[in-house]
Amino acid sequence: MSHYPPSIRKAIQSISKLPGIGEKTAERLAMHLLRAPRIEVEQLAHSILELKNTVRLCDRCYGLSDAERCAICSNPARNPQLVCVVEQPADMVSIERSGAFAGHYHILGGVLSPINGVGPNDIRIGELVARIVKHAVGEIILATSTTVEGESTAAYIADRLRNSPVRITRIASGVPVGGDLKYVDQVTLKRALEGRHAITPK
Amino acid sequence: MSHYPPSIRKAIQSISKLPGIGEKTAERLAMHLLRAPRIEVEQLAHSILELKNTVRLCDRCYGLSDAERCAICSNPARNPQLVCVVEQPADMVSIERSGAFAGHYHILGGVLSPINGVGPNDIRIGELVARIVKHAVGEIILATSTTVEGESTAAYIADRLRNSPVRITRIASGVPVGGDLKYVDQVTLKRALEGRHAITPK
Repeated sequence: MSHYPPSIRKAIQSISKLPGIGEKTAERLAMHLLRAPRIEVEQLAHSILELKNTVRLCDRCYGLSDAERCAICSNPARNPQLVCVVEQPADMVSIERSGAFAGHYHILGGVLSPINGVGPNDIRIGELVARIVKHAVGEIILATSTTVEGESTAAYIADRLRNSPVRITRIASGVPVGGDLKYVDQVTLKRALEGRHAITPK
Repeated sequence: MSHYPPSIRKAIQSISKLPGIGEKTAERLAMHLLRAPRIEVEQLAHSILELKNTVRLCDRCYGLSDAERCAICSNPARNPQLVCVVEQPADMVSIERSGAFAGHYHILGGVLSPINGVGPNDIRIGELVARIVKHAVGEIILATSTTVEGESTAAYIADRLRNSPVRITRIASGVPVGGDLKYVDQVTLKRALEGRHAITPK
């Protein structure tokens, strides 16, 4: 890399700081940018800066938003009485992609993790409780990951709300669609059996 | 992606235009930039723009440079009478990395390729000829690739300079260092045999 002029060296250095991009790839990308049309390069630089300057957290659900209130929270077609609790904005995007949910979200911003020093006050559990009271939420769906930390976060929230009239549910866990039973792990199979449901007769 | 706010969508779009970066990776990078320290993001955007604004071609060798004359051409310790002819700036960087060359370079900016409509006037052959005359170059090393196009480009240049007093050489081709003969292709082996040299007795 030291054989490039300083401005190319600097660009390679900045690009290789991105996750999953090593020096070789950064070098290839820098060479591409040198050849790319000026407008494309300017758009890239501009959009990166705008990302940092424009994106904020929705003041109700804490999802990523360009405005004070995100597109989901301000959509009158969605049900504000049904709130899906997720760990991160990306989880919300995954659920939106499924198209199976028409309620609101609440983004915790993490999971409880005593090992990493994350306690109930470090993620947005208090905000969730306040929101349930304030907006008379009827049901919360705990959609944290099915990892140890995600499970205990869900259990903690359920416990904290046990005296609240809100209905508390947890997303189903079991064999993934398209999954071959041969390759499914034992814990998932156990869950799938425990969570079995009657097939409605035609 | 349509579930992200517009500014994130725009950034993902710009990033996924980069070669080898799909939408999933672009999404991951955008999420990283959202979390990254502002200074890092600004450095990245700035270095990308600077790349486009600062980098130019050296007016002698046509290598990438921040100034009118590149670091190699303006280094008095290097021999200007020995010129290594390569296809692209990246080839020059590879040779510099080897540390085995102390002359100057000439970057053609491509190879002859009738199929792609690249003729002798589309790459910097005229500039090379002019440079040989003007700077009394003693030897040119043709270091184009050992592909069909690289070979014919080297042959074309050698033919064009056959009446010039300059010494014309071609980089050796043969078995790569560390190469196992079992896995070396026939053409390379044929070249390696043709290019055999006597082992100097001790």
